[in-house]
Amino acid sequence: MGFFSKDIQTLDDLFVHTLRDIYYAEKQIVEALPKMIEKATAPDLKAGFEKHLEETEGHVARVEKVFDMHGVEAKEVDCPAIDGILEEADEVSGEVEDKQVLDAALIASAQAVEHYEITRYGTLIAWAKQLGREDCASVLAQNLKEEEATDKKLSALAETRVNREAA
Amino acid sequence: MGFFSKDIQTLDDLFVHTLRDIYYAEKQIVEALPKMIEKATAPDLKAGFEKHLEETEGHVARVEKVFDMHGVEAKEVDCPAIDGILEEADEVSGEVEDKQVLDAALIASAQAVEHYEITRYGTLIAWAKQLGREDCASVLAQNLKEEEATDKKLSALAETRVNREAA
Repeated sequence: MGFFSKDIQTLDDLFVHTLRDIYYAEKQIVEALPKMIEKATAPDLKAGFEKHLEETEGHVARVEKVFDMHGVEAKEVDCPAIDGILEEADEVSGEVEDKQVLDAALIASAQAVEHYEITRYGTLIAWAKQLGREDCASVLAQNLKEEEATDKKLSALAETRVNREAA
Repeated sequence: MGFFSKDIQTLDDLFVHTLRDIYYAEKQIVEALPKMIEKATAPDLKAGFEKHLEETEGHVARVEKVFDMHGVEAKEVDCPAIDGILEEADEVSGEVEDKQVLDAALIASAQAVEHYEITRYGTLIAWAKQLGREDCASVLAQNLKEEEATDKKLSALAETRVNREAA
């Protein structure tokens, strides 16, 4: 971003900026998930994170497709939000000794990541539609659907087993 | 948090730590909202942020009530997640010149804040129930309900008017 001028002039600029934000975020999540897989103890949580890592690689590819469809360069911009969310995930998990409590903490951190993506994709889809890019909205909606499904699966896993074992 | 020992031993410790995280977050949001009110142009967006500032002050009070009910000190811990989300809100809004596009950006930023709170309250409520603190869960659920309602109102405002005017 520029330091001497305001770089976002139109809703299209804001859409592209936010697409670059989520592009950076998805790539950071691809980097972060292997550490979470390593820390997880419950086999179904570990497997869930592994599956989500594959999905996240697919999300990166879909965002690249949207850049291409919209005719703009696939580029990342800094995203202090995801940096902060992942930093906090790392800090909290570093404070937990007990394996079962750590699983509960990992689920909470993963859900904070999911919710960040859910809000950004929700916004991007609304803006794409407003800009007449139903085609881009439809690709982004596939990512949103998978993030929402992951969030629900994590809630179910926490509520049916992980929290009970942690208590 | 400690640097030489792992401070979170039990699910109760994790619950209290996360309560202190959302306590810090709610207070930072009380600080941030007046700047967002000032930047907003659409009268209904400005009014919505003003109403949410009042609600957020109520959320701080409810979190203090939960500390009291649970018999622990009302204390804040650093929350890099909300710091990052608010830093990004500030950066993006500083890049937008056009008033209507700025309103669309402000709504997106506010929804990222709401989603962070929604995920944290969802987690805290599940943990409170697991710990047998239905009373704490019920107070936290009041905050969650208001955050979810605010998020829905912001989506409606964006989709019915603000995005159209920004386009």
